[in-house]
Formats: sequence, structure tokens, C-alpha cells
Amino acid sequence: MTNKTIRGVVPPVVTPLTETGQFDEISFERSLNRMIDAGVHGVFVLGSSGEVVFSTDARRREITAAAMRIVAGRVPVLVGCIDTETARVIEHAKVAQELGADGIVVTAPFYALGGLAEIERHFRLIHEAIDLPIFAYDIPVCVHVKLPGDLLMRLGREGVIAGVKDSSGDDVSFRFLSADNAAAGHPLQLLTGHEVVVDGSYMAGADGSVPGLANVDPWGYVRQWDAYQAGDWESVRREQDRLADLMRIVTVTRGAFGYGAGVGAFKTALMLLGVFESNRMPDPVVALEGENVDAIRAVLQRAGLLDEAGNPVPPPGA
Amino acid sequence: MTNKTIRGVVPPVVTPLTETGQFDEISFERSLNRMIDAGVHGVFVLGSSGEVVFSTDARRREITAAAMRIVAGRVPVLVGCIDTETARVIEHAKVAQELGADGIVVTAPFYALGGLAEIERHFRLIHEAIDLPIFAYDIPVCVHVKLPGDLLMRLGREGVIAGVKDSSGDDVSFRFLSADNAAAGHPLQLLTGHEVVVDGSYMAGADGSVPGLANVDPWGYVRQWDAYQAGDWESVRREQDRLADLMRIVTVTRGAFGYGAGVGAFKTALMLLGVFESNRMPDPVVALEGENVDAIRAVLQRAGLLDEAGNPVPPPGA
Amino acid sequence: MTNKTIRGVVPPVVTPLTETGQFDEISFERSLNRMIDAGVHGVFVLGSSGEVVFSTDARRREITAAAMRIVAGRVPVLVGCIDTETARVIEHAKVAQELGADGIVVTAPFYALGGLAEIERHFRLIHEAIDLPIFAYDIPVCVHVKLPGDLLMRLGREGVIAGVKDSSGDDVSFRFLSADNAAAGHPLQLLTGHEVVVDGSYMAGADGSVPGLANVDPWGYVRQWDAYQAGDWESVRREQDRLADLMRIVTVTRGAFGYGAGVGAFKTALMLLGVFESNRMPDPVVALEGENVDAIRAVLQRAGLLDEAGNPVPPPGA
Amino acid sequence: MTNKTIRGVVPPVVTPLTETGQFDEISFERSLNRMIDAGVHGVFVLGSSGEVVFSTDARRREITAAAMRIVAGRVPVLVGCIDTETARVIEHAKVAQELGADGIVVTAPFYALGGLAEIERHFRLIHEAIDLPIFAYDIPVCVHVKLPGDLLMRLGREGVIAGVKDSSGDDVSFRFLSADNAAAGHPLQLLTGHEVVVDGSYMAGADGSVPGLANVDPWGYVRQWDAYQAGDWESVRREQDRLADLMRIVTVTRGAFGYGAGVGAFKTALMLLGVFESNRMPDPVVALEGENVDAIRAVLQRAGLLDEAGNPVPPPGA
Repeated sequence: MTNKTIRGVVPPVVTPLTETGQFDEISFERSLNRMIDAGVHGVFVLGSSGEVVFSTDARRREITAAAMRIVAGRVPVLVGCIDTETARVIEHAKVAQELGADGIVVTAPFYALGGLAEIERHFRLIHEAIDLPIFAYDIPVCVHVKLPGDLLMRLGREGVIAGVKDSSGDDVSFRFLSADNAAAGHPLQLLTGHEVVVDGSYMAGADGSVPGLANVDPWGYVRQWDAYQAGDWESVRREQDRLADLMRIVTVTRGAFGYGAGVGAFKTALMLLGVFESNRMPDPVVALEGENVDAIRAVLQRAGLLDEAGNPVPPPGA
Repeated sequence: MTNKTIRGVVPPVVTPLTETGQFDEISFERSLNRMIDAGVHGVFVLGSSGEVVFSTDARRREITAAAMRIVAGRVPVLVGCIDTETARVIEHAKVAQELGADGIVVTAPFYALGGLAEIERHFRLIHEAIDLPIFAYDIPVCVHVKLPGDLLMRLGREGVIAGVKDSSGDDVSFRFLSADNAAAGHPLQLLTGHEVVVDGSYMAGADGSVPGLANVDPWGYVRQWDAYQAGDWESVRREQDRLADLMRIVTVTRGAFGYGAGVGAFKTALMLLGVFESNRMPDPVVALEGENVDAIRAVLQRAGLLDEAGNPVPPPGA
Repeated sequence: MTNKTIRGVVPPVVTPLTETGQFDEISFERSLNRMIDAGVHGVFVLGSSGEVVFSTDARRREITAAAMRIVAGRVPVLVGCIDTETARVIEHAKVAQELGADGIVVTAPFYALGGLAEIERHFRLIHEAIDLPIFAYDIPVCVHVKLPGDLLMRLGREGVIAGVKDSSGDDVSFRFLSADNAAAGHPLQLLTGHEVVVDGSYMAGADGSVPGLANVDPWGYVRQWDAYQAGDWESVRREQDRLADLMRIVTVTRGAFGYGAGVGAFKTALMLLGVFESNRMPDPVVALEGENVDAIRAVLQRAGLLDEAGNPVPPPGA
Repeated sequence: MTNKTIRGVVPPVVTPLTETGQFDEISFERSLNRMIDAGVHGVFVLGSSGEVVFSTDARRREITAAAMRIVAGRVPVLVGCIDTETARVIEHAKVAQELGADGIVVTAPFYALGGLAEIERHFRLIHEAIDLPIFAYDIPVCVHVKLPGDLLMRLGREGVIAGVKDSSGDDVSFRFLSADNAAAGHPLQLLTGHEVVVDGSYMAGADGSVPGLANVDPWGYVRQWDAYQAGDWESVRREQDRLADLMRIVTVTRGAFGYGAGVGAFKTALMLLGVFESNRMPDPVVALEGENVDAIRAVLQRAGLLDEAGNPVPPPGA
């Protein structure tokens, strides 16, 4: 397994819970298999939408072990090792390594105030301690700092990091990073995390995408990737328009906010699609209910994922 | 003149100054003619990069009057009426109307703290007072608020605004706005202000672009637009890559920041290209000089706009 | 007039409007006289709460001229020359100088992005152009940058600025600035703009305060200042507690936000106290009404400024 | 032990490390004893400056157990249970409870995006799971949300939280909170975390302070508290001025930022004072060295904590 193999559609896997808040491994298996059957090129467990920061160490181990067992080498597995500072991240990374992960995903440190020197040293220390490809996770909305392009390129050229998962929302920086990466011989695999504008990232030369919405509709993102590989931009764009419309599940609800609206909508959609048993959220977030569930059902129907009676429509080619 | 005609490439016109800080109408004319000859579809004077907030009322009038005289109806002219609150914006808008502008561009109020209700009322009051199409200018980096999509759509459906100039950097919102606009019968003309990722905005269905870099290379953006209209996405993308590389003029300098680095680079490039007499900046910003000018020259040479001797290369087809 | 004379209680004067939005000079005179009679040590017109950014150039001139006529040398008059960039500020400052202002108040530039070099040059250029003491207005909530203490001290030691009006809310920086100023021989007059914690600023060595709430209750702030001068800290604190309670007029309303809630409450209180004819706000802000007016009335009654029937209680010593 | 006993000076205890990054229990004991001997009224371990977010679960347990053994009931011990979301906080809180903590300190959730409803539920769920007084830690600079006063009062009146550690820097809100708390019968103990303006917080009615600088000079903060209790405001203020000058240890260095400059300076001062063996910082932060150490030594000498030869000066009354 080399880092070159991390490309294409790599969904950040949403973590199902039982009604009482336990890890629902049966639903997890159903969802992973559904995505792999649809043709995704990798999976990313314990990402932001995989409720990594809601999970205790024991829960994190449970989820990673289940993922490794279920995926069983069919596609690469990235594991999010997301925590406040270096020692804690290394602790998680050692567990991921022990369990057989193909790579880890690491953010900048957060909570304590620091500067770019600390961020750079953070990645270097983790690289020294761990023998796995590291993907830098650029997610300023959560860690409140943007990873600068020149820092990422330096770490990439020196082999400290193998790639970048870009959830910065800063498409200008992503474009420059992509150009710099090409000029440097492509040391980094560049993945975009913005499911609504993946087409633009592909235009910028992205090596893949990490769309949360691919938990709901993995086929769409795989078709889009195939069209991209074939140079069929009109299909890339049309598929994106369709997926952007499906993404309205995160905006049609009322009273929810942030994680509760976003991952809450993914879980609710997966419940309506028969993939998850429950849309239970991790504390302190509450699950969507009532009219919010109805609103999400309507979007799924409009997108053709549910029929008029609310039953899941078999996937393409099934 | 209806607002429907505002589409395509509409550069925000950089304002040249003499060495002593006066408005340099001769360079302004040279630059406007160069852009119109290259085929741009409109021009936007007194935008953020047209130094509107650095300009006194007298200077604003001088610039607008010169633009109207020079353009002489060849393309539509949008005029930025950018100021802190309603009464001051209306004052500028009346001058723009008197001088014959084809539309005005207006931001949310800034400096005083307010909410969405004040923003909405601001646009409505200006619309009541002025008989010109209004483009809402979404530029949170300057006014510190993002214009929400539902607010823009409401103002668009009711005819209060005719379009949006999006410099928000929020491509997800732009995608949703574009879809909502299409569903509502296209009441708004949607223009993107991000010169580095215009291709992604075109994929999202933008009606045009407002690229500051088109002051430097209008031909490139016009070619890209033509490719977009022809459905030739590979050319759209390739042209974008070339323009993104040219945009490095704003990142190769040292010690400059914000307006001084961005518009400073545009002015310096236009000076090196023989379009401007000087790269003088408005107070309190200082002009780029020395090694920073050299660095910009090198980018222009790499992009083929200057030859090895530093002389401007004639435009395509000249 | 030297800058040493700007000390004590210097209210930022709220600007009354007529029901139709004109400047209400009669109410303005009533309010100014009421504050001067109460013993304030200066007045600051066209501050943030004096609706400077809502006012056209003509309106600004009208307000300044009226203030100079009414005050007639009884106390020093500071005039806010608040605008986006250098040339526009100098234009306002020349009017203030022409009309006889005793000093001007100037913020960092805003809207266009810049850095500390531009801020420093901004103050220096204004100082070169104008022959009046300059107070640096530190108000990051409006201009989105904090003026650093070392920059302020450098400008103070060199005579570029005469003082600071601190509305930063950063009391740690204010403490350090006060200590640095004392160590440097007190080149700066340091005024706090936070009406709710003036006692803490006096503990830190402030030379005065600029409390918006002093428009409503000038006597309280004057008593507090006198207690500070006498070293009677218990009275300073007790008066502050009383004034903090009165300040609830800005938090008891519903549905208003920012300027509309804050200055809206001041105007409403002044209307209820018989000082203003109307609580009309500048566009696009709407005036408080209905239950919000009732809520403010209740606070004024609790504070003893209105009697049970809602009639103004004569001031102490009247 | 009731929450009423948490008042006075409660330093957030800085955690010493050996040169190789292990927990230095000997220095920890020396420092705790020094503070208790000086008369502090409680201690707070595993706060932000106690490197809680840099510490693995095992390290957190080690620090808490050592603190309980060393303090041995002489003063109350608060333990920081600071982590991203509810389940992880409860896990830490159970350890604190098991080890005998007198109270826990909990921030709002961080990293994942949420709203006020999630914050409120977070505190309620922890309260249900744990049988210890909870102090809400208001530290927006780290968790990027300000705890609203009405939320804190509601949780206080219902017995969910026992107090607030305010590191918000928002003294206006603190004043209002203090008044609301008094009006409600004082359900909350209000502690300020801003060591430079403790005098202002005492004027606002604070029940105590949590000054990081009290690790360096506990006597000063105890004297200030005693003066506050005696109503001797002039001494409160004079002591504050002295302590603010000592706090310059965090600003005299160059090249360090955030945690590295702040806690880095505390550790360096404690090393120079002979309390810590090393000023080693937790990864990825590097320790201050060279001229930065000299600069801190000079401040300690100016403050009389070191003599001219650099030797610690015996504490008052020793």
C-alpha cells in the first residue's frame, strides 16, 4: 500500500449508533458494503462526520477494528486520528497502526493557541513516531487555522505527509496548491471535502474527493469520478448539479445547526434508506425528528432515492 | 439597457494614479480601451479594486464621468456605490445615475453593527430612491457579513436587485444560489469575483465573471468565456490554469499585504505592460518597488505577456 | 487648547433626528446643555453612536457646526472624522478644523484589507495634513483590527496622536497601555469607551471615559469621576453598579440588534426623558417601538430617572 | 465540601515536565506547597495552562492523583475535565471523582460545530452523570464560543453548575453576570481568569480569581485578595499594578506565540525561581531559551523576585 493508491472517491464514513447510543456495527457493515459495492475507491473512518471527537478512546478502537474487519482489504482504509495535541494524536495513531490502517488523517493542533511553527512540528513528530502515510486535514472551521500551501508543500516534498484532505472551503488556495503540487512532481494526493463543488475541484486537478454525501449516494460520486477520468466534463457537471440538489437534506431542516443539521441529515437519510437502524446522534446532539425527517424524505424522493411510498429505490444496475 | 445584458466578462477596473496621486485619465482610457478591444462584455468602475473606498466624493465623480465618456456605450458600465450606510450610498448612486451608469453595485452596510433586517432594508431603500439596476456585492472579507442566499433570492424575485457580484469565496453557497436562481426563472445575473476559480463558477452556472486579473490579461478571460459558451470545458479549464499561474503576481511579493499586495500587483503589472504610467497607490498604501517589481516582471514573462527584454508582447490577433 | 485638557467624562453625543429623518437641532441643543450642566468635561460629536457613518458630508457639517455654536467653548469638543481611508478622513478633518473643533477622533482605515504599516501611515498622513490633536479610536468591533499598544505609544511619543479612545473591550491591553504611557511621561490621554466597567478602567489609570450612557445619565458619570479624583473607590464602584443596571436598557429589548438595540435604546430613553422629540433612527435602522419602549421605560423607572407615572425626575440638585 | 468554599485565589497549576517530557512530580509538589504556603484558597489542576489538552488520559490521571496526594485536603482541588464532547468529558470526570476532586471545570464542547442548545445539554448531561460541583469554563479564545450570561444563570439557578471560571475577556458581560447572580441569591461562584485586571473584576463583585501568574507570585494575589476583603481598594489597585508589571514576562520574548509565550514564560520564571527543574514544554511546543530567558529574568529582577545575581528572593515573612 503506497499513498499513491489513495485517490478517487473516499467517503468519510458516518458512524451509526443504536437507539441507546452504542456503536451499531450491523448498520456500519451494511453501509460500508453498500459504498464499496457502489465502487468507492477508499473509505475514511473517524473523520469529523464519523463523530471522532464525540468518541472515547474505546469507541474509536471499536470503530476502527470493525472497519478493518468489514473492509478486509477491498479498498484502502484511512483512519482519523483527530485530537487536540501531539501526544494524544500519536496515541490514536498507534492504535490505528496496530489495527492495520492504510493511512491516518491528522488536523492541526487545536484548543491551545499556537502558530505555524507548532503546526509544522506537530506533523513532523507524528511522522517520526508512526509508520503510516499521513494525510493533513485542512479544516479551519473546526481548528480555526488554515494550513498554508507552502507548509503543505514543504511537508509533502520531504515525505512527512502523503496527501491533503481539503475542507477549507478556500478554493483559491486549493487551486494554487494543486498547481504547486504538479510542479513539484505530485508528492501529495489532494482530496477535496466539499461535496457540493467537487466538479470545480476536479477542474483544479484534485486526485479525489471525500464527500460526506457519498454515504447517502455513493453511485453518484463514483459516476462523477468516472466521467472526470474520461474527460467528460459535461457529465461531471450534471452529476454535480444532481448531487448538490440532494445535499439540500442538510438545509431543509429547521432548528438544527452545525453537526446536528449536517451529520444529523446524513444519518436520517440513511435511516430512511434502510441502511441505518436509527438516526441517533452522539451526546450532546439530538437527532432530527418529526417535520425535519419529513423534509429530508421529500428531498430523497425528489432525487429518486426513495419512491413515492418512501421505499428505497434499488441502486443503478441492481 | 436591461440587467439581462450584464453577463460575460466584466472586469473591475483598476484606477491609475499619477506619481503625485492624481487620477490619471490618460492611462485609464488606455486601459479601458485595451479591455474593450479584447472583447470584455462590460466594465465595473469604482469596485473594491477600483479604490472606491480610498476616493473622495469628487474623485468618485471624476472617475465615473471619465469612464462614461471613454466607454461611450460600447459596453455596459457598472458603478460601485460603496459606502457605510444607506444615505451615503444613495448620494453616490444619484451621481452615478446622473452620469449615465448602466447599473450600480452595492454592498451590505458596514462599520455599524446590524443584522439581516437592516441589510434587507438597505437594499430596498436604495431601490426606492434610484432608477438603476442594483447588483448586490457579496464581499464578507470587507464588510464582515455574508449575504444569505434566501435574502438574495427574495430581493431578486421582487425586482429589488438585478444580480449578484459574488466575492464571498463561498462556492458552496454560490452553487446553491445558482440552482435556486435557475428554479426561480433566473431573476438574478450571477457574477463571480474569484479570478482563480472562474471555471468552477461556470460549472455552477455563473452568468459571468468580474476578475480583477482581467485588467492585466483581458484576452484570457474572454477566451475562457467563449469556451464556456461553446461547452468546451477542457479549454475553460486550461485557460484557468494559465490565468491562475498569472495570478501569482499577487503572491510573489514580500512585505506587502492585502490591498497593497493585490491591487499593488495589478498596478505594477499594468505599468510594466505600458498601460499605466505609474503604480502609485492611494494613501495610506505604498506602491510595490524594487525586488517586488522584478518578481512581478518574472511572472509576466513566464506567462508570455512580456518578452525576455521586458517589453510587452502584442496581444493575440494584433 | 492642549490635549492635556481632554480628560474626565466626555460623552459621545447621540444625534437626534426628527420624525422625517432630519437633524433635530433643538433636541441636540437640549441634550448638549443638559450634559454640560451636569458637569461633563468635554463632548465628542460624530462618534460611532453619534451616527457618523450614517451621515452624509453635508449632515456631518451640520452637526459639527451646531455643536460648536451650542457648546460655545464651555467644554472642549471632539469631532469624529471616521471614514474608510486617508483622503476621506482628511477631508472631514479639514471641515472640523474650519469649524473650530478642539480635536478629532480617527479610527484605523477599514473596508480595504491592509496591515499595521498602513494604519501607522494613515495616522501620520492625517497628522501632517491637519493642525488639531488626534485621538486614535480603537474600535475593533467596527474596523476589525485592534490597535497595538506599541504602535499607539510610538505615535504618542512622537506627537502624532494626543490620546486614545479605547472601545476595544480588551482591558488587559488597556492596562499595559496605561502602564507604558505612565512610564513614558504620559504623552497620551487615555479614555475608555466602556460605560459598564469604567471603574476598572479608572483602577487602570484612565484619564477619562467616553460613555454613551452619559447621554442618558450624565450626573452619574460625573459623580463617579469626582469620586475617582477623591480616591473614594467604594463610591466609584457603587456608582458603576447603578449605571450598569441602567445600561440594561440596551439588553431588555427583543428583536433589535447592534446599533438598533444600543443607540436605539439611548434615543428611546432620551425621548422618554423629554430630551429628544423622537427616537427616529437613521436608515436602514428602524426605531424601537411598542413593548421595547415599555421595557426601557421600566428600566428608567427602576433607576429613578422616571417616576411611576413615567415623568422625568428632576436631576440631583435641580 | 460545598461549592461555596471555592472562593479567593485559586491558581491554575502549571504542570512541570522533566527534560525528557515526563511529568516532574517533585517540582509539582514544590510548586503546590509554595502556593499553599503563600495562602492560596484552592488550586485548579489540568486547566488550559496546566496543559490538559496536551496530556493523554494516563498523564491526566497521573497529575490529578499527584495533586490529591500533595494537597491532602489543605485547600479544595478543582480538576479540569476538558475535552471535545460529552462522553469524553464524562470519562475524565469519573476519574476526577474517583481520585477525590472537590470540583471539576468544564468548557463548552469544541471542534464540532453546534449551537447553544448543545452547550446547555452538554452541561446537563455531565451534571447527571457526575456527583461533583461543576464550574463552567468560559474561554472563547480556545473553544470559539462565548457562554451567554442567561445560559449560565439558568444552569446556576437549577444547580447544574456551581460556578464560572471566566476567561472570556468580556468584562461587560462579567459585570452583568455578577449583578444577575447577586439578584438571584448568588447561586454561582464567579472567578475571573484575567490576572492583569483582577482589580476590575473584584470591583464587579467577583468571588475569586484564577490567575496563572499566581504560580509565579502567589503572595501578591493573596495580598490583593485580603485587601479586597478589607475594602482597601487602593491596595488592591497598587498590587494589581505590580502584578501587571510582572506579567510582562509573557510579552518580553520574541518569536514565541500563544501557549509557548504564555505558559512558556510561567515555566521559565518558575525554573529561574528554583521551583521547576526545567522549562520543558509539551509537544509540539518548544521551550523558551537564550535571550528570551534573559528577558524573563530581567522582569523577575525588576519585580524583586530575583536579586541582582539572579537568586530567588525569600518570600515576604519567610
